[in-house]
Amino acid sequence: MDAANGSQTLEAQVKAFFDSAPPLQNTQQLTQKLDQFIQRNSSSSANGEPRRIVCVTSGGTTAPLEQRCVRYIDNFSSGHRGATSTEYFLKAGYAVIFLYRRGSFQPFCRSLPDDPLLECFEPADELNIQVCEAYSEAVKTAIVDHHAAVKGGLLLKLPYNTIFEYLQMLQLIATSMRCLGPCLMFYLAAAVSDYYVPWKDMVEHKIQSGSHLLDVQLVQVPKMLSLLRKDWAPLAFCVSFKLETDSNILLNKAGTALEKYKMHAVVANELTTRKEQVVVVTSAEKIIVQRDKSISGNDVENPLINLLSERHAAYIKDSGR
Amino acid sequence: MDAANGSQTLEAQVKAFFDSAPPLQNTQQLTQKLDQFIQRNSSSSANGEPRRIVCVTSGGTTAPLEQRCVRYIDNFSSGHRGATSTEYFLKAGYAVIFLYRRGSFQPFCRSLPDDPLLECFEPADELNIQVCEAYSEAVKTAIVDHHAAVKGGLLLKLPYNTIFEYLQMLQLIATSMRCLGPCLMFYLAAAVSDYYVPWKDMVEHKIQSGSHLLDVQLVQVPKMLSLLRKDWAPLAFCVSFKLETDSNILLNKAGTALEKYKMHAVVANELTTRKEQVVVVTSAEKIIVQRDKSISGNDVENPLINLLSERHAAYIKDSGR
Repeated sequence: MDAANGSQTLEAQVKAFFDSAPPLQNTQQLTQKLDQFIQRNSSSSANGEPRRIVCVTSGGTTAPLEQRCVRYIDNFSSGHRGATSTEYFLKAGYAVIFLYRRGSFQPFCRSLPDDPLLECFEPADELNIQVCEAYSEAVKTAIVDHHAAVKGGLLLKLPYNTIFEYLQMLQLIATSMRCLGPCLMFYLAAAVSDYYVPWKDMVEHKIQSGSHLLDVQLVQVPKMLSLLRKDWAPLAFCVSFKLETDSNILLNKAGTALEKYKMHAVVANELTTRKEQVVVVTSAEKIIVQRDKSISGNDVENPLINLLSERHAAYIKDSGR
Repeated sequence: MDAANGSQTLEAQVKAFFDSAPPLQNTQQLTQKLDQFIQRNSSSSANGEPRRIVCVTSGGTTAPLEQRCVRYIDNFSSGHRGATSTEYFLKAGYAVIFLYRRGSFQPFCRSLPDDPLLECFEPADELNIQVCEAYSEAVKTAIVDHHAAVKGGLLLKLPYNTIFEYLQMLQLIATSMRCLGPCLMFYLAAAVSDYYVPWKDMVEHKIQSGSHLLDVQLVQVPKMLSLLRKDWAPLAFCVSFKLETDSNILLNKAGTALEKYKMHAVVANELTTRKEQVVVVTSAEKIIVQRDKSISGNDVENPLINLLSERHAAYIKDSGR
């Protein structure tokens, strides 16, 4: 197992990962969608300036344990952060590529129950259905706002399941969009698998459950953030996330990630308080961002996206565009 | 790690599993719901006979790798089989307890797209929404039929996530319902984890991704089917499933499961053809059940549930009730 060799260079680890990955389906269709999205949004402009584009990644990635996948390792992530942030990015004038885990939270739907169709609607009579009174406004807003963003060409939604799909799609997005230079932002809120089983090492069929103990050996997923910054889209403004359950190590780990992967900002969040407060770590500052509790229905993503949008604007200005 | 001792008796392994499991939330509320469900459905009767009740389990279970769960091992299962079967059991006159993985397919919704709210509705004008023409009938049927089954007290839906929740809930359902004797059926379509990390062996915090290799050691989940048959609900009619990706070993494995766990029937299905054909294995027969392709929109679950319902009726008759 070559990929198991920890002494390999990052480039060799990345090559081993992509070589081992099953090829992405529909690459051509995906490239076409991305090209149309760039064309539409780089020609349209808000207040005379070119429209900024952000790629929001959202939800967990899976690492299959079998080629004909029955079992996989998954990361917990509802996708709430990415879905909510997408709404605020759209409000802030961005066009958004929403790279999301299939089945995770969708923009404009976060105040709805788990199963909105069955829980928000009821029969009106034998022939018709109606929205339940309690969800009337939320359902209408979700459908109208979502539809406006998608039909208006401001929101492009791209689903993934596995870590293989996620990283291949992220690379394709970055290399397709690097022409946007500093106007492009990456907001990497997806919970990406740290470990995977190289495709060629996987058993083809379902693992048999005969033995009393199972030993699963996984290889670290190469940290692609460095490549995103260095090769894929070197001028893009990059924001990554650090989630920990242990607040004692959180800020240190966020600082390390900032330096190691040359991010422009790292959003540090702790599992239990992540909807109330995050800390934005940059090379110069640690800024605590809190949800404004005085306004009902407000989210921590509201001030967070405002802050990042400001920083991104300053970054574009500094880049001389 | 006691549970790792493969020479333990099944009872000891089961005790180790339940001792290690985090206690089920809302047990009292769950018991109350089950009691009401039994009361309502054992007093009502179809054609003079007591109503039959089936517990359909559906979707995959997760095995957490960390106590404050970020990572877990999951089993692929959309829950399509369980959701579809539930509809046919209701049609056949059963009351159904639907024990399902949160987020998996729901009864009456299988012909709808992944994200029905956003894909089936559109703005009618600035103030109103409407169902898209293409989904009009499917959406209406889903809401009306689902509502009728739930409000009519014939469908009780109980969600789970982890293998710990699933097995504790299954035990509670079985012991609460054993009073129904042979009128009770278990239709165990859930894809249950074969391996787990005992709760007490789990790290509390998120596994750190420092090292290049990760070695995950898992213990086999004790096979509770034997206990279901022997202790939890000895008179119930029990149907389990065997899914394999390798058709060469499928029927043998189904036969072994039938004998080992004393099931009344095992439904053998192969991953790629599972929506077209299954084989019902009993001690006397192997019956191939196929989807009737001449009728559009027909499912293999239609003849499957008809067959099982007949066998269950014969079983009740043989039991002298």
